[in-house]
Amino acid sequence: MPNAEEPFQLALIQMPVSLDPDASLAHACGRVSDAADAGADVVCLPELFRSPYFCQSEDPANFDLAEPIPGPSTEALAEVATDAGIVIVAPIFERRGAGLYHNSLAVIERDGSIAGIYRKMHIPDDPNYYEKYYFTPGDLGFRAIPTSAGKLGTLICWDQWYPEAARLTALQGAPLLLYPTAIGWLPDEVGNDEGAAQRDAWMTVQRGHAIANNVFVAAVNRVGFEPAGGSGRDGIRFWGGSFVCDPQGRILAQAGDEEEILLATIEPARVEASRRAWPFLRDRRIDAFEPLTRRFLD
Amino acid sequence: MPNAEEPFQLALIQMPVSLDPDASLAHACGRVSDAADAGADVVCLPELFRSPYFCQSEDPANFDLAEPIPGPSTEALAEVATDAGIVIVAPIFERRGAGLYHNSLAVIERDGSIAGIYRKMHIPDDPNYYEKYYFTPGDLGFRAIPTSAGKLGTLICWDQWYPEAARLTALQGAPLLLYPTAIGWLPDEVGNDEGAAQRDAWMTVQRGHAIANNVFVAAVNRVGFEPAGGSGRDGIRFWGGSFVCDPQGRILAQAGDEEEILLATIEPARVEASRRAWPFLRDRRIDAFEPLTRRFLD
Repeated sequence: MPNAEEPFQLALIQMPVSLDPDASLAHACGRVSDAADAGADVVCLPELFRSPYFCQSEDPANFDLAEPIPGPSTEALAEVATDAGIVIVAPIFERRGAGLYHNSLAVIERDGSIAGIYRKMHIPDDPNYYEKYYFTPGDLGFRAIPTSAGKLGTLICWDQWYPEAARLTALQGAPLLLYPTAIGWLPDEVGNDEGAAQRDAWMTVQRGHAIANNVFVAAVNRVGFEPAGGSGRDGIRFWGGSFVCDPQGRILAQAGDEEEILLATIEPARVEASRRAWPFLRDRRIDAFEPLTRRFLD
Repeated sequence: MPNAEEPFQLALIQMPVSLDPDASLAHACGRVSDAADAGADVVCLPELFRSPYFCQSEDPANFDLAEPIPGPSTEALAEVATDAGIVIVAPIFERRGAGLYHNSLAVIERDGSIAGIYRKMHIPDDPNYYEKYYFTPGDLGFRAIPTSAGKLGTLICWDQWYPEAARLTALQGAPLLLYPTAIGWLPDEVGNDEGAAQRDAWMTVQRGHAIANNVFVAAVNRVGFEPAGGSGRDGIRFWGGSFVCDPQGRILAQAGDEEEILLATIEPARVEASRRAWPFLRDRRIDAFEPLTRRFLD
């Protein structure tokens, strides 16, 4: 395991999710071990990797899928982290208390301790993505979590569309922003121009965060088709496409739409080199940014 | 000329700049007329279109190139605007007072009046781009200028790397962000991977602003090679590549590296359609954005 500021190997676990949460957890642990065997220092799992994307419908029974932090998922993954000597970024459907749930992640250190948690700040709500029903918006703010591999900028899915979230995380000194994700197409978006434009926009906005902040960005998505259940819509085809890009937005590695462990080398020193060439942080007009705290400037 | 919220034709004047400011102004007036003849309702010129990119060296004599607003450039262009019944976005090296200069633009209405001005907020300073010597940072804030074609979000060049600038302009209700630009390669960046990555990053970060704000974005650059003069560096090859993209970041039109009038249809109604599909503005965590007004979160 390298020291902070040293290059490290990042692995993204692009995986399908089964109906059985225990099977998904066991599968994830196996894949994380495989990634460590392949040389990974830091391994990131997709959003809510332990369960089907239950937010396709609003069903109170789904709250039974939530668990505390620490809890069964972090305990199982802590064992893998300790055995392999790696850092794991583990998304968790968090039960914080009775009737209080978050879409969270825990960063697990190589000694099995929890280095920090992040609770998804931006909660979407769209047809088949009824997250506002399930998740209380995060109250920990944006976070760069210190680890033995350096600071990890942790965000989750819908956060990826918000330049403010990327900026506030990067300003804490993270050379890498990690976006565990669950995004895909509804059936009428698969294989057409609209669907392709959505996937391209998803990549482009995140590559834009890399460029604007001179940092590495990684997004890790699930794959496979998951039927909607009771909602009346057909379901979601998760598009995979997990990727890592450098501080100029150049793609270093990208997955297809099948299960895959995606590896890339993160070189934190390139952040400073990039900022010397493109000194964006020097010139931000912070004297004029207060209106960013307003909903609309009408 | 359409009413606000109606579709309109945008024209970007990608042009080379000669050593003679009067010749450049006459050339620009001619090209703007040509664009109007081609159906344009709103025409945007490149940054500092009236002069070579003098910021390649620091020379006090170059302040003689500055002019007031209103002044000779806005007067000449007001005549074109009136004749053609179009709105013109005209970058100006502004002499505001003795020893006080800005990198500005004036928006000229179809009746020849000045609808508003914008003064570049983010001022770069890099080898061959010594703008901090010439330009006082803007003190008008970010602006969406109301015109007979709707609100025009006006920004200039280095602003294009700042998500905060795009957001603050879009939040004022502009369906279109316009970036007059002067950007190119130093000789050792032409035709290699590094140069290509720079140009791609420049497009990507702006397409990212379109996506994050669900607005149209247009950038208009100059073309041609301009020697550096006394600075000892060889000069800049301006890369052209002016483009217009839609609220999903899709390229609607893009120029090559030669002189060109680029036309595209802007449909303001698509902004609301895009925000219904991707309701980013609904969910911004404005309660957590105050630290954006800080330089670094250390």
